[in-house]
Amino acid sequence: AVLRSIRHGVPFFSHSFCGAQARFTSSAYSELDNNARQGNRSGSVATPPSHLDSTKRIDVNPPKGTRDFPPEEMRLRSWLFQNFREVSQLFGFEEVDFPVLEAEALFIRKAGEEIRDQLYGFEDHGNRRVALRPELTPSLARLVMQKGKSLSLPLKWFAIGQCWRYERMTRGRRREHYQWNMDIIGVTDVTAEAELLSSIVTFFKRIGITESDVGFKISSRKVLQEVLRRFSIPDGLFGRVCVIIDKLGKISIDDIKSELRSAELSEEAVEDLLQILSLKSLNELEVKLGASAEALFELKQLFSLGEKYGYSDWIQFDASVVRGLAYYTGIVFEGFDREGKLRAICGGGRYDKLMSTFGGDDIPACGFGFGDAVIVELLKDKGLLPELRQQVENIVCSLDGNLRNAASSVAGRLRERGQSVDLVLENKPLKWVFKRAERVNAKRLIMVGSQEWEKGMVRVKNLGTGEQYDVALHDL
Amino acid sequence: AVLRSIRHGVPFFSHSFCGAQARFTSSAYSELDNNARQGNRSGSVATPPSHLDSTKRIDVNPPKGTRDFPPEEMRLRSWLFQNFREVSQLFGFEEVDFPVLEAEALFIRKAGEEIRDQLYGFEDHGNRRVALRPELTPSLARLVMQKGKSLSLPLKWFAIGQCWRYERMTRGRRREHYQWNMDIIGVTDVTAEAELLSSIVTFFKRIGITESDVGFKISSRKVLQEVLRRFSIPDGLFGRVCVIIDKLGKISIDDIKSELRSAELSEEAVEDLLQILSLKSLNELEVKLGASAEALFELKQLFSLGEKYGYSDWIQFDASVVRGLAYYTGIVFEGFDREGKLRAICGGGRYDKLMSTFGGDDIPACGFGFGDAVIVELLKDKGLLPELRQQVENIVCSLDGNLRNAASSVAGRLRERGQSVDLVLENKPLKWVFKRAERVNAKRLIMVGSQEWEKGMVRVKNLGTGEQYDVALHDL
Repeated sequence: AVLRSIRHGVPFFSHSFCGAQARFTSSAYSELDNNARQGNRSGSVATPPSHLDSTKRIDVNPPKGTRDFPPEEMRLRSWLFQNFREVSQLFGFEEVDFPVLEAEALFIRKAGEEIRDQLYGFEDHGNRRVALRPELTPSLARLVMQKGKSLSLPLKWFAIGQCWRYERMTRGRRREHYQWNMDIIGVTDVTAEAELLSSIVTFFKRIGITESDVGFKISSRKVLQEVLRRFSIPDGLFGRVCVIIDKLGKISIDDIKSELRSAELSEEAVEDLLQILSLKSLNELEVKLGASAEALFELKQLFSLGEKYGYSDWIQFDASVVRGLAYYTGIVFEGFDREGKLRAICGGGRYDKLMSTFGGDDIPACGFGFGDAVIVELLKDKGLLPELRQQVENIVCSLDGNLRNAASSVAGRLRERGQSVDLVLENKPLKWVFKRAERVNAKRLIMVGSQEWEKGMVRVKNLGTGEQYDVALHDL
Repeated sequence: AVLRSIRHGVPFFSHSFCGAQARFTSSAYSELDNNARQGNRSGSVATPPSHLDSTKRIDVNPPKGTRDFPPEEMRLRSWLFQNFREVSQLFGFEEVDFPVLEAEALFIRKAGEEIRDQLYGFEDHGNRRVALRPELTPSLARLVMQKGKSLSLPLKWFAIGQCWRYERMTRGRRREHYQWNMDIIGVTDVTAEAELLSSIVTFFKRIGITESDVGFKISSRKVLQEVLRRFSIPDGLFGRVCVIIDKLGKISIDDIKSELRSAELSEEAVEDLLQILSLKSLNELEVKLGASAEALFELKQLFSLGEKYGYSDWIQFDASVVRGLAYYTGIVFEGFDREGKLRAICGGGRYDKLMSTFGGDDIPACGFGFGDAVIVELLKDKGLLPELRQQVENIVCSLDGNLRNAASSVAGRLRERGQSVDLVLENKPLKWVFKRAERVNAKRLIMVGSQEWEKGMVRVKNLGTGEQYDVALHDL
């Protein structure tokens, strides 16, 4: 039975059995580790043989596709989130959040989006269909509808939330990621999209990414709408066509064509569509659509605003960008790495009609989502990952078992003055304390020894300079 | 059919049908609202009749028992979390996190804990039993086992994570809350518990709560263990007995007695146990257990450390405290409001044996959980809720539609200098802008008008003093 369970659990790697513990160690921000781990993970067979006799050892790994955040990974996540927050606030946005669990109906649209197939849905104990959210926008729309007239438009909201997708394929992708969203609700003008792009550029600059590393491809769904209208294709098909076109570059051109045909587009419409999608400049687009097209007007305005903001070098028109979500209606954009090695870094656009699909009154809106995974890959590739160490101001220890209580009161005193303290909680040799001080990156070591203590003093060692001196308690 | 669905969905409140939208408005940190809402919520019938003709209006509320965090609620949550973080870091703790979704087995223990009945578990698409975590400690233990020897003990870790409980009863409790945890892994000494208590006291003081508002009841499970040993009751029953005793005050004394009897405790043992549990001083305990009992030694040491830290007035011995989790083995404590109006504010203790129940090697450990709900109720009762408003440094608008792009570049310039800006994105009358400035709590209004712009200047109004002046762009 043991052998069989191992066989079942580890079908591809015969070597993954001995020493598996070490290799299973997860790394929240390492895509490569996850890829490597893909084959030899299982929920049930991590029990090494040595434990079969005693209590069954649990699987010490997080569920497949999810991450732990031990301190070193958490520091990176906090640094990233802090930058998301600071940039959002620099732009006058307010933070919001929604439940990670929502009614499944909120996420189900009839456009064949990838997101629907990957919904992490289940039935709760009350027989309601619920799902771990795959994205934040529908919840935002729901909250805006709930608050209704009590809200003063425009809203500028941001959120940083965990999103879930149940990926059936083993592509080394995770089942959860954190996503930074910024949304502007109540502004019709393309000035809103320009602000959003400006905030992402600000974020990139702040973490050391330049326009030679990344760019934004920008288009408008109104370009497609124009083509569909010419061929009298019903508006109801619009979302579905966009979702198909988003697969450009992911599936073959022939498959795209046949999907478009099965969405009842004529051969001629398909060809015209694909030709338009290949355009890479607004001049070509103008030739194709005519100077009076609404799509063209908005795109020109956006590029002109980009100049004023100073991010012209970051943006380019690319008609092939449509994004994979059914609800976008106007400008769409995505951030990409110029080396072309990674998936889209972020993406967004205008979604003026989302609320009516929920039975509410439409409010103009646009926003973007920016995941926490691809950006970390990019920072790694560019050697831009920050070195983040723990930091405490003081490490406090007693030099004598009898003075442990005294050390506690010294720690309390320092903390009352806002100084962080790692207090040594057991009797340890000074050698151990120095090693610990190094690990926690303490600036000062404070030793409570009986000779000094009798005089109301403690010995302080500046761990940067090595300087050592005695200080009265009340001067600490 | 309409009438029937309304009847089914709103069985108790005949008035909850008209104007339901307004009353449904959720408030993340209002327990009362949630209580009031208990009866008239349903996942499927929030559609008001006016929408039956058009697209079905979705339920605009978050799923039952969950919360949205619109900006005003989010500010409170962020303030709370910021205080959790700052206190944890003051004590030299590092932040960690774990997946909100874990293998269900991680949370299932055989002691009849309330937590087990309330597990938010389901089967994922891969037929694995998973659960939204009801607490953070098992994940922490799992991660510690995974990291094994690569960790340098002691660990001082904190986490702030969302936890889920599927409450079947309609008690006005939520199904999710955020929990602040601090844990010390690798310290046998009661100095660890003393540190944890000190950090909670520091948190309370920081947010304005005093020892006249709250206190800690402290005991040790070793007290119970001592009694059980005297009556030769097997160690395996220990967790179960603790879980029963934790119901003191929640169910009747007679029910407790009968539960204890069905756990095969003799009449005599039950009486002795209940007598011990009524003790409120260490002196009485010493009379009962004898001066050499291990439980007594640790408790005395903890109270003596409390004096050194300066929180003696916050703590009291109370043998009836055992906490409801099966895994505690030593000191246990809970924070309570002295008016006795609220549920426990926080709770924790020592859990030296948790890892062996997972098939790993035991490491001494202790920690606490501190929820985000009861503390907010307490702050409200005491009038201590902070007033938190949005804050931006500048609101920027153009006085002329032609200068909208100019306003964008002014905003960009300010943000590059680290100044936050709410940019007015559409042509709005100045009256509207002033109202907006008031709402976003801007310090300065910056107006881009053509006369000043031609001279490379903008008009600035200090919104605190009302003072108004022109400033050159490069001096902004």
